[in-house]
Amino acid sequence: MPETLPADSVGLVTPHTRRFDTPLKLDCGRTLPGFELIYETYGTLNPARDNAILICHALSGDHHAAGYHAMSDRKPGWWDTAIGPGKPLDTDRFFVVAPNNLGGCKGSTGPNTPNPETGRLYGADFPIVTVRDWVRSQALLADVLGIEQWAAVVGGSLGGMQVMQWAIDLPERLRHAVVIAAAPRLSAQNIAFNEVARQAIMSDPDFHQGHFYEHDTVPRRGLMLARMLGHITYLSDEALRDKFGRELREGRINFGFDVEFQVESYLRYQGQSFVDRFDANTYLLMTKALDYFDPATERGQDLASVFRDALARFLVISFTTDWRFSPQRSHEIVRALLDADRKVSYAEIESQQGHDAFLLNIPQYMSVLGTYMRRVARECAQ
Amino acid sequence: MPETLPADSVGLVTPHTRRFDTPLKLDCGRTLPGFELIYETYGTLNPARDNAILICHALSGDHHAAGYHAMSDRKPGWWDTAIGPGKPLDTDRFFVVAPNNLGGCKGSTGPNTPNPETGRLYGADFPIVTVRDWVRSQALLADVLGIEQWAAVVGGSLGGMQVMQWAIDLPERLRHAVVIAAAPRLSAQNIAFNEVARQAIMSDPDFHQGHFYEHDTVPRRGLMLARMLGHITYLSDEALRDKFGRELREGRINFGFDVEFQVESYLRYQGQSFVDRFDANTYLLMTKALDYFDPATERGQDLASVFRDALARFLVISFTTDWRFSPQRSHEIVRALLDADRKVSYAEIESQQGHDAFLLNIPQYMSVLGTYMRRVARECAQ
Repeated sequence: MPETLPADSVGLVTPHTRRFDTPLKLDCGRTLPGFELIYETYGTLNPARDNAILICHALSGDHHAAGYHAMSDRKPGWWDTAIGPGKPLDTDRFFVVAPNNLGGCKGSTGPNTPNPETGRLYGADFPIVTVRDWVRSQALLADVLGIEQWAAVVGGSLGGMQVMQWAIDLPERLRHAVVIAAAPRLSAQNIAFNEVARQAIMSDPDFHQGHFYEHDTVPRRGLMLARMLGHITYLSDEALRDKFGRELREGRINFGFDVEFQVESYLRYQGQSFVDRFDANTYLLMTKALDYFDPATERGQDLASVFRDALARFLVISFTTDWRFSPQRSHEIVRALLDADRKVSYAEIESQQGHDAFLLNIPQYMSVLGTYMRRVARECAQ
Repeated sequence: MPETLPADSVGLVTPHTRRFDTPLKLDCGRTLPGFELIYETYGTLNPARDNAILICHALSGDHHAAGYHAMSDRKPGWWDTAIGPGKPLDTDRFFVVAPNNLGGCKGSTGPNTPNPETGRLYGADFPIVTVRDWVRSQALLADVLGIEQWAAVVGGSLGGMQVMQWAIDLPERLRHAVVIAAAPRLSAQNIAFNEVARQAIMSDPDFHQGHFYEHDTVPRRGLMLARMLGHITYLSDEALRDKFGRELREGRINFGFDVEFQVESYLRYQGQSFVDRFDANTYLLMTKALDYFDPATERGQDLASVFRDALARFLVISFTTDWRFSPQRSHEIVRALLDADRKVSYAEIESQQGHDAFLLNIPQYMSVLGTYMRRVARECAQ
C-alpha cells in the first residue's frame, strides 16, 4: 500500500474491456460465439503506431501487469519491476498492452463468465484453449487498437510460448520476440507435475465436474495442493534452502502433523491465498495449454523448420537454477533459431531463484532486457 | 508368476512375526506398551552368528525383500535383484533379515493394528516414530535372533538413513554400513514435497482425521496424489523422457481432461494401484520420519563429529540422475566420514533412472555391491 506512488510507477491504472462479436474458431474444433478481453495499457501509442508492446502472461498471471488499481493496493501489478517510466519496458517510450488470456478468470471470457448458450457460468463447459488460440484472440485485440505490428511481443514461461507462437503464426505482426524462461514444449516431467495438479483439483469432491459455482463452493483443497506443488517447481532447491533451510517454526520438533518446518508454513500460505484469487477451471485450462504447446510437432519436431517462418529478431533469456524450464530448454530454442538463420540474442542469468526469477528484479536480467528494449525503442518513430 | 522358481531366487518364503512385550520408549515421548515386528529371513545364520545382514526398507517398502510368498505371485520381493544365492547379498553366505518397520502397514505394529488401550485400530493415534526408534526396535529383534553384531546393515533411501543411525547409535553392533541413495538430512525441497503429499492425504474428506478405518473407507484420492507426486521425484527427467516422452495414448490430442499423454496414464496407474496396497497413516508416518532425520542437529550440524562415534566401514552409493537424493548429498556423507577419519568406499553409478535406480538391476551397481559384500563375507567365519 504506497502512500505516494513511486516515481517510476505507471501509477493508477484502470482496466479496459473489449467485446468481440465475431465468432472465434478454436483449435479444439469448437467456436466461441463471441468473447471479451480485459486488458490494461501503459504509456502512449505514438502517431506512427509502431511503439506497441504486447505482454503475454503466464499460468497464474493476468492483465494487471503494472501499477496500482487503488492507493490501498498492497502490491502493484505482477511485472511492475519491468514496466514503467525508465524501466526496461519503458512506458515513456512504449505503449504496453497487457491482456488477460481467454479462459482466464480475471475478466476475460472464461469458465467463470456466463455461457450465452445456457445462461449459466461456463464452468467445465468452457472449451480448451491453446496458445495458438490466445495468439488469434490477441491479434483481434491488436486490430481494434490499431496496432498492425508490435514493436515487441514479450512473455515469460507460458507467456514465452505465446511469444514464439506469435513469431511463427503472424510473422509480419511483430519486429521483436522476447522469450523468457520458456521451452519449445513441455517435458514428460513437466506434464507429470501438471497432471498431479489437475488430479488434485478434479478429485476434490467440491469440484463437481467443474460446475462448483452452482454448488456455491470451490475446490479449495485441490487448488491449494496444485498451487503448493507449483510453488515447489517455481523455486530452486537453492532458493528453498536459502529461504527456509530446515528451520522450524517453533524452534523445535512437535511430533505432529501441524506446520513444523518454515517451508511447510510458506507453502500452506501460498496455497491458501491462491484459492481466494484464482479459479480452478482456469488452472486446468492453463495447464492443458502448456501441455499441448508444441509448435514443432507438425513438422516432425523440426523446430528450426518452424522458426524459418519467423521474421522477428529474438531475445531469449533463461535463469541458471530454473529447473522447470531449464537453460537447456532455452538452448533448444536458440539452436533452432540459429539453424533457421534467424537473428537471436541469448542471455543466461545467474540467479538462485529458480523459475520464479523471471518475475523478479534481478539487476543483470533487468539490464539485459533494458539494453535490448532501448534498441527496440530506437527503431520506433519519435 | 513364475512357473518354476529361478535358480538364483531364495524361493518360497514365509514371514515370521515376533512379539515384544517390553515397553518401547519412543523419541516423541510416548511409549508403546508392546509391539510386533514382522520379518523375513533368507539364508542360514552360521554357528559363529557373524554372517547376518539387516535390510532396512524405504518409504513404501516392507519385510518382503526377496523370493515369493506363493507360486501365484506376480512379482518377487522388492529387492530380489540383490538378494539370493550368488547375488550381491548372497544367501549362500549371508543370513539376511528384513523386517517391516514399526508404523508400517504390512504386519508390524502400526496404524492399521489394534491399539491395546482402546481396542480399536490405532489410526492417527499411532505415535510418530523416528529413524532412531526403528533402530531401537530392530536391535531388539537382533537380540532375540541372537545376533550380537551384524556383518552389515544395508539400506537405500530412507533405509540408508537407518543404516547411518545404526552406525552412530550402536557402533559395536555392525561391521559394515551400506548407505545407498541417501542423504544426511532432507533439504527444504524434500520436505516441501513430503508436505504436499501429507496435505493431499489429510485434506481428503475420506481421511477422517486418520480414523478412516472406522468409517469403512480409505482416503483414496489423497493417497493416490501422494504416490503420483512421489513417483515424479523417484524418476529422473531423463527416465520420464526415455519412458514416455510426449507420447499420446491414442496418438492424438483429444482436448479433454482424460488421460492423453502416456506419462499421465502411468502416473494414474501407479497412484491407483498403490492405494490398494498401502496405508495412508503409514505414508504420513514415513514422511515424518524422513523429515525429522538429522543426526547432526544435536552437534551443530557437524556430521563428522557424529560419525566419529561410528566403528563400521562404510560403502556409500549414489546414482547420477537421482535428484531426490542427489550424488551431492552422498558426497556430504562421504566427506563427513573422511573428516571423521572413518573408512569409506564410494561409488557413483551412471544411471538414467533417477532415485528409483537403487531398486533396479543395474550391472555396475550390482557389481560394486557384490564386490564389497564378497569382502564382507570373507571376514565371516565359515
